[in-house]
Amino acid sequence: MPKISERGIIMPSSPIRRLVPLANAAKKKGIKVYHLNIGQPDLPTPEVGLEAMKKIDRKVLEYTPSEGLLSLRAKLVSYYAKFNINANVEDIIITTGGSEAVLFSFMSCLDPGDEIIVPEPAYANYMAFAISAGAVIKTIPSSIDDGFALPSMDKFEALITERTKGILICNPNNPTGYLYTRKEMNQLRDIVKKYNLFLFSDEVYREFCYTGAPYISAFNLEGIEQNVILIDSVSKRYSECGIRIGALITKNEEVRACVMKFCQARLCPPLIGQIIAEASIDTPEDYMLNTYDEFVERRKFLIDGLNKIPGCYTPIPMGAFYTVAKLPVDDIDKFCEWLLRDFEYEGQTVMLAPASGFYTTPELGRNEARIAYVLKKEDLAQALNVLAVALEQYPGRTI
Amino acid sequence: MPKISERGIIMPSSPIRRLVPLANAAKKKGIKVYHLNIGQPDLPTPEVGLEAMKKIDRKVLEYTPSEGLLSLRAKLVSYYAKFNINANVEDIIITTGGSEAVLFSFMSCLDPGDEIIVPEPAYANYMAFAISAGAVIKTIPSSIDDGFALPSMDKFEALITERTKGILICNPNNPTGYLYTRKEMNQLRDIVKKYNLFLFSDEVYREFCYTGAPYISAFNLEGIEQNVILIDSVSKRYSECGIRIGALITKNEEVRACVMKFCQARLCPPLIGQIIAEASIDTPEDYMLNTYDEFVERRKFLIDGLNKIPGCYTPIPMGAFYTVAKLPVDDIDKFCEWLLRDFEYEGQTVMLAPASGFYTTPELGRNEARIAYVLKKEDLAQALNVLAVALEQYPGRTI
Repeated sequence: MPKISERGIIMPSSPIRRLVPLANAAKKKGIKVYHLNIGQPDLPTPEVGLEAMKKIDRKVLEYTPSEGLLSLRAKLVSYYAKFNINANVEDIIITTGGSEAVLFSFMSCLDPGDEIIVPEPAYANYMAFAISAGAVIKTIPSSIDDGFALPSMDKFEALITERTKGILICNPNNPTGYLYTRKEMNQLRDIVKKYNLFLFSDEVYREFCYTGAPYISAFNLEGIEQNVILIDSVSKRYSECGIRIGALITKNEEVRACVMKFCQARLCPPLIGQIIAEASIDTPEDYMLNTYDEFVERRKFLIDGLNKIPGCYTPIPMGAFYTVAKLPVDDIDKFCEWLLRDFEYEGQTVMLAPASGFYTTPELGRNEARIAYVLKKEDLAQALNVLAVALEQYPGRTI
Repeated sequence: MPKISERGIIMPSSPIRRLVPLANAAKKKGIKVYHLNIGQPDLPTPEVGLEAMKKIDRKVLEYTPSEGLLSLRAKLVSYYAKFNINANVEDIIITTGGSEAVLFSFMSCLDPGDEIIVPEPAYANYMAFAISAGAVIKTIPSSIDDGFALPSMDKFEALITERTKGILICNPNNPTGYLYTRKEMNQLRDIVKKYNLFLFSDEVYREFCYTGAPYISAFNLEGIEQNVILIDSVSKRYSECGIRIGALITKNEEVRACVMKFCQARLCPPLIGQIIAEASIDTPEDYMLNTYDEFVERRKFLIDGLNKIPGCYTPIPMGAFYTVAKLPVDDIDKFCEWLLRDFEYEGQTVMLAPASGFYTTPELGRNEARIAYVLKKEDLAQALNVLAVALEQYPGRTI
């Protein structure tokens, strides 16, 4: 039998994926599993998006331009303007989800052996896309004790080598919910400028900022306009993860020309998704406000609840819809497995995303979990109860 | 400004893409351009597909499983059975177009420096996906004089090195329309077995076989079940290129597990496209027959017409909806540009795909073009007229 690639061997499997069969087995036994692990909002997709799909009156579902529909790109221009992101139509390339925007950024900017620096914990799939491109991710741990603030610049500088091509951030952050401050963004700008790096900035959670602190887009950082590649997606903000529409935005014409070659190879992003995304940009303000209010309330409820459980601690996330919490357990992977395989409380259990999967530094995150608040409050309440009982009963508890 | 990747620099731009601005400029001048260059059928998407989309009654357009909807995969099982392709549900992974199936095959099976052998002329984007994976495509020219039959096995064997990991074919072939015979497929089977190679077989045009000669799927070749990776797509057969749904099918469990890691990283294929594709599999037989009859007629019309133009020659393609024709011109790239920039006949011109873009061996295909018959007969007639006149007037004609 011919052998698979080395690249395929080192590709990580998501630690959540390993838990899926256990969750399915629990459900088969009739146990209710609260999914605190997922990133798919439970809120409805906006009506305008669904209606646009039903009204499609095309006879042929044909290819769109490789860079996406002009009408969608034009609409995104005005959407970004609301966030003071000054992007022109030609700066915007539509991608098959934010995922493809990350992959094509890496393919276009990084050669095998090139390095990028990423604060951790970080979205696990960045690693997968880096491996796809043969690139190396070097991580700098941020700490739960600082609320996952940006690590200091000397930590970044210590990692910079001849192969360093860029820095990647996610802002607001998945998994931590941290929102980078103006001061931190300026520090990033300075280091990017000093070492002539790319700054890949994944800002798909920009609608979800809860504290009144400003969201500073990397796209607005002065003096590094040619260095910044913005990653975007409509998945989270309109609760339409399944349509697979994202965008890559950059003022760097050379990068765009290169990304376009990858875009042309895969022909086009999904037509129907583009139509839905375009319509969704017209989602009424009150939907967005309701969504926002709902998440604000859930966030408070979840954070308060977690911090009341003995031995648990989580900082208050400023954005996105996740938090990383420290739990009083010996090993988060074992605990997450135990929850699904060996535990139930009144016919219920919870599924968490082990934070170990968001770190590459060994041993980090071994007692942390990412907890999403994409369930309604009553379910969050039940899930918190169940988690509290589980932590009392877990044989490997540390308090 | 930070530099783009070497990989990005060597990524090919499609030669068709370079013609697009010229075609647009011609249209702006009011010239009617007949697109003989494209691969998007003009036929309507089946009603069952469009209806399924309009009837979607979901409140949240959420992620699907990374391997695709189970119901779609199950339906594909019975579809493949009609072609004696014995695939189980677990053999089938849904991808974002056939494009992604090619990319993930390469990513999973090929490391940087690994080689695959491809008969040329070949679909240009295979090269782009190989470059994405860092792999090397070695080509073996097939000849218009043999009707683009499979090159002899000693030509393959001459190219095999320690780095050779596979052979890639497209059957029926894009761009040539050639359909590999039982004898040729058996030759491929033997060489694949002898050298323990992967056989990547792109069979997206299987519905389009016109001569009564049997379509032999690589999936049916005995003794190399673990070597074959089948690439599929619903784009062409249901005229729904824009929904971006394809599939990767293999009995090789190790390859599937590896491909799944790439699938999980990009989360899922497009939800709406999957729903449309699933419904499209129930397209009534008479739609498929009408499509078939339409293409048979167009094929005859186009081939007869081309072979009547002085100095033109094309073999009779057995499948797909393209042919590669030899034209009496000095340089096909120059001729295609001239058609769009300097020529018009009664306010009309034609756009062709220069075959030079389908060869990697320098100088091959310099007087060949890929001509698609995805226009209705009246338009093909006009296009042939215009082409004949153009070949009389072209300053670089060779007869």
